[in-house]
Amino acid sequence: MTKKLKSDLGWSTADRIVVRGHDLVELLGKTSLGDFAFLELKGRMPTKPESIVFNAITVTLVEHGMTPSAIAARLTYFGAPESLQGAVAAGLLGIGDRFGGSAEDAARMIAAENGLSGRFVELMQLVGEEASRAYGRDLPVNATGAIGAIASELGIPWRVCRGLAVMARAIGLVAHLQEEMQEPLAAEIWSRIEGESSSHQRPGSD
Amino acid sequence: MTKKLKSDLGWSTADRIVVRGHDLVELLGKTSLGDFAFLELKGRMPTKPESIVFNAITVTLVEHGMTPSAIAARLTYFGAPESLQGAVAAGLLGIGDRFGGSAEDAARMIAAENGLSGRFVELMQLVGEEASRAYGRDLPVNATGAIGAIASELGIPWRVCRGLAVMARAIGLVAHLQEEMQEPLAAEIWSRIEGESSSHQRPGSD
Amino acid sequence: MTKKLKSDLGWSTADRIVVRGHDLVELLGKTSLGDFAFLELKGRMPTKPESIVFNAITVTLVEHGMTPSAIAARLTYFGAPESLQGAVAAGLLGIGDRFGGSAEDAARMIAAENGLSGRFVELMQLVGEEASRAYGRDLPVNATGAIGAIASELGIPWRVCRGLAVMARAIGLVAHLQEEMQEPLAAEIWSRIEGESSSHQRPGSD
Amino acid sequence: MTKKLKSDLGWSTADRIVVRGHDLVELLGKTSLGDFAFLELKGRMPTKPESIVFNAITVTLVEHGMTPSAIAARLTYFGAPESLQGAVAAGLLGIGDRFGGSAEDAARMIAAENGLSGRFVELMQLVGEEASRAYGRDLPVNATGAIGAIASELGIPWRVCRGLAVMARAIGLVAHLQEEMQEPLAAEIWSRIEGESSSHQRPGSD
Repeated sequence: MTKKLKSDLGWSTADRIVVRGHDLVELLGKTSLGDFAFLELKGRMPTKPESIVFNAITVTLVEHGMTPSAIAARLTYFGAPESLQGAVAAGLLGIGDRFGGSAEDAARMIAAENGLSGRFVELMQLVGEEASRAYGRDLPVNATGAIGAIASELGIPWRVCRGLAVMARAIGLVAHLQEEMQEPLAAEIWSRIEGESSSHQRPGSD
Repeated sequence: MTKKLKSDLGWSTADRIVVRGHDLVELLGKTSLGDFAFLELKGRMPTKPESIVFNAITVTLVEHGMTPSAIAARLTYFGAPESLQGAVAAGLLGIGDRFGGSAEDAARMIAAENGLSGRFVELMQLVGEEASRAYGRDLPVNATGAIGAIASELGIPWRVCRGLAVMARAIGLVAHLQEEMQEPLAAEIWSRIEGESSSHQRPGSD
Repeated sequence: MTKKLKSDLGWSTADRIVVRGHDLVELLGKTSLGDFAFLELKGRMPTKPESIVFNAITVTLVEHGMTPSAIAARLTYFGAPESLQGAVAAGLLGIGDRFGGSAEDAARMIAAENGLSGRFVELMQLVGEEASRAYGRDLPVNATGAIGAIASELGIPWRVCRGLAVMARAIGLVAHLQEEMQEPLAAEIWSRIEGESSSHQRPGSD
Repeated sequence: MTKKLKSDLGWSTADRIVVRGHDLVELLGKTSLGDFAFLELKGRMPTKPESIVFNAITVTLVEHGMTPSAIAARLTYFGAPESLQGAVAAGLLGIGDRFGGSAEDAARMIAAENGLSGRFVELMQLVGEEASRAYGRDLPVNATGAIGAIASELGIPWRVCRGLAVMARAIGLVAHLQEEMQEPLAAEIWSRIEGESSSHQRPGSD
């Protein structure tokens, strides 16, 4: 009395890989990574406006500089250089309830210009205007909100919205780790923080 | 006598985000996610052939069906539905020394057709021909090798090659988790495996 | 105008390690792992009853058989055998909002017998009696609840209670990975799940 | 023609949990967390000397102050406070090829005093003496080596030795996260590192 296991995303054999019903070999060279991500999530290729908007919101989420997430990834790579995937995973684990997005205004404008602006985006514009009165710096709820609004226009379930940040940031984290390989910062960061945070306990400190 | 911390990837203020020297707002709507990933890694926009090849190799790495990585992500989501990022991270942690790629032949062909075929790709073609004589199923070394060859043509450091799989698979894992939300499989998988693997120990078994 | 970084947990030099004000070398050989964990969390050594109860609740959380968490760890190890820490981390990522504990009744009894039973444990006994009328199998809220009650008696903040499960399960996951090294199951699990879940899409299936 | 799935670690029903053949309820109150970890790994309870040694080596691995691993865990918790397990997992991901252990000399002495000293420990003493001539600070290979020697005396497979550090550090990381909840450092760390590492790129910097 078991339930049948079933997935519609893809399957492969030795000489063929099929994703969402498309032979991969027919898509290669014609489909960009962003459009392919849309296909994975929605089960169909994006229209031109959808493609522009979807690529724009994911692009905005790739790189936000030396965030806690990027620092955590670099520190993890320092300890476990054999596992690049572990360092990326450590970085992604910080893309949670409080993650700082930004540049979402631009992404929202793109959405509007491409005829997808609807009630979700409008709602967010109002929220954004309110929010921008109050704050100095980058407001997490704003990022989440704007991207959530656009994702909703695209019919992406709200629970999956965080996944857009996760997939985009995976790209950014690989770039951070590449830079860390070339110009390591982790040992210096460790040394400073360890020294300062334990100085009150060491003998001779007062 | 501390070392200056420095990163060239990007920085942001409340109203501006700059990545690799480009104002993000000027790239949005014009730059696809794949091309932006290239910019992140290489510090410059790709040429047209580079764009085609880079998108092709990352696209081939997004979705390989119900892999150990995808199953691990789904089982993790089952236990911690509050943390989509954790389930993606769990899946990515399996993209290590032995990960099964596939469809790399097509990506390699794309590279050749776009004038980037050089000594790395040629070398891999020879390896691939040898390999294809021997095996029935998807051969990890083949995937790693072919993508490594193309990435080398693109000047991506070999240590970062695994990162291409990681960033691409992050997309695939989000799609798996979306499907898992809609049609959960984890409980069934758990139930079957737990029952079978402990049956020899339970009272009444012989 | 920066905030001073400060941690009271420990510090080390080349020839000395100090944890919570104790020289490690003076504790070794006298202090068990469980008591040391108590010291880490509470800043002081446990009394004898506290030791018994704390060890009991953590022991109950170590091993629950082939859980989703254990399966995810094994599948991750299959893909990335270079990173044992990654496989443990993948398993721990499933110790989230819905994690199945069990055997908490025994741990609760231990608490009562050792004079720590107070209002928290009493409350949980009532909840547990209600719960045990209704269910056939292991009930997550029950485990969380009972251990939470005892942890509260011990003055451990509720936010940290999940951490007890995480630290204990880390032990169990290492044991699962040791078994997986000796008798691998991951490839078989993968093969079955992949085959079944994609069978409806493959050519020749109907 | 499938392989039978089988695990000998444990199983549970609604009213019973059995680990390595022992009814959990009979062990509670009598078995410490460290001894239970030994049971999990070795399949039998430790002798008294084995218990002392095993607890000593795991205790030495719990807390090494503000390590890269602890910092990564705190930064991750900052971004995803909903997922304590994610922050611990992020910290554990740095317990890889280069992790700094320490205080291993004491643990090794304990082993000698308890009659378990054999060829592995002797070998490490020689290595350690050589090593201690050359270095100022804590030497990773030394920690790995000494604990590896003792673990080998205990018959723990070398591949699992890293797991001892992982399970022990999980405890330390929970303590760090408890402290981070009470006195948060992550925002300050982020602010300093982000500011400094991007200062050369921001307008007005020269």
